[in-house]
Amino acid sequence: MIRDLILKNRSYRRFYQETVIERDTLKELVDLARLSASAANRQSLKYILSCDPQKNALIFPHIGLAGNPGEGERPSAYIIILGDTEISQFIGCDHGIAAQSILLGATEKGLGGCMIGAVQRDTLSKVLEIPPRYEVLLALALGKPKETPVIETVGQDGNTWGWWDDEGVRHVPKRFLDDIIIG
Amino acid sequence: MIRDLILKNRSYRRFYQETVIERDTLKELVDLARLSASAANRQSLKYILSCDPQKNALIFPHIGLAGNPGEGERPSAYIIILGDTEISQFIGCDHGIAAQSILLGATEKGLGGCMIGAVQRDTLSKVLEIPPRYEVLLALALGKPKETPVIETVGQDGNTWGWWDDEGVRHVPKRFLDDIIIG
Repeated sequence: MIRDLILKNRSYRRFYQETVIERDTLKELVDLARLSASAANRQSLKYILSCDPQKNALIFPHIGLAGNPGEGERPSAYIIILGDTEISQFIGCDHGIAAQSILLGATEKGLGGCMIGAVQRDTLSKVLEIPPRYEVLLALALGKPKETPVIETVGQDGNTWGWWDDEGVRHVPKRFLDDIIIG
Repeated sequence: MIRDLILKNRSYRRFYQETVIERDTLKELVDLARLSASAANRQSLKYILSCDPQKNALIFPHIGLAGNPGEGERPSAYIIILGDTEISQFIGCDHGIAAQSILLGATEKGLGGCMIGAVQRDTLSKVLEIPPRYEVLLALALGKPKETPVIETVGQDGNTWGWWDDEGVRHVPKRFLDDIIIG
């Protein structure tokens, strides 16, 4: 059931870093994005894969992974989603569609990850030598999750900010269904 | 397998319009979006549901559904995705994440649909009386699909434009995996 997969697909930020993710696995995940919808079917997205420790170490300082996991708990792999501006200047929400397909695929494989918009685009582009025609849209961190976030309902104050408790469990408040349907 | 669901989840534009979709079904689908990731967990998206013929007829003239299906082949329902600017001005690609969750859920239920960015936002907002705090981001058309689009590989000319053949089959060229992975 897709609902079970969506429920299991939390935003994970701490991983068993020693778990190896093969490049072929990342390619299978990107293939799910390739087969997903894209604005006017332009398919402007391009991807950079990373699954070796050296390249991962290059990427990590330039992404803002909440909680800032220490060495040993960092992602085993990354997929950087780029917009190819020579194909289109208008990406719409294609990277959201792609990222969701990729993370659902990762979840099905017993992996997990996090979509990261807080990317230092200039410095990441520099260390990865990304040509200027590509716009960095999103970084996906991937690994074998070392945490089990808990979904909660949002409180009276309306605060949706996630937080970790003393046992290191992340609590993630979600709005009520009736509050997001307005017509 | 998520891959099978993603493959089945094509952009459908012609439907058995007489097939009824209940409001509760639409709510179940929005719940999948509710449980999906959102930028900084702000959950700025709001939703308007439509599944009765009168409301559907109000919406249809303001969305650009390629092929312009005639009466009898139009969507049985719509989910309009809005950004609540009082929660956040930054939506990122949240509507892409949400739309993909919703359409995968619809596909699992034997339905199908299409994400539509070509929306006449001003007139749609007027007929649906959408308050100005909400930005129309995307319209999702939903129904029981009456067509079976075919995925093809993109030709040498690089053209990705979808087309219908004489039998009414839609052909959708997709780029090669090796062409979209650049590092």
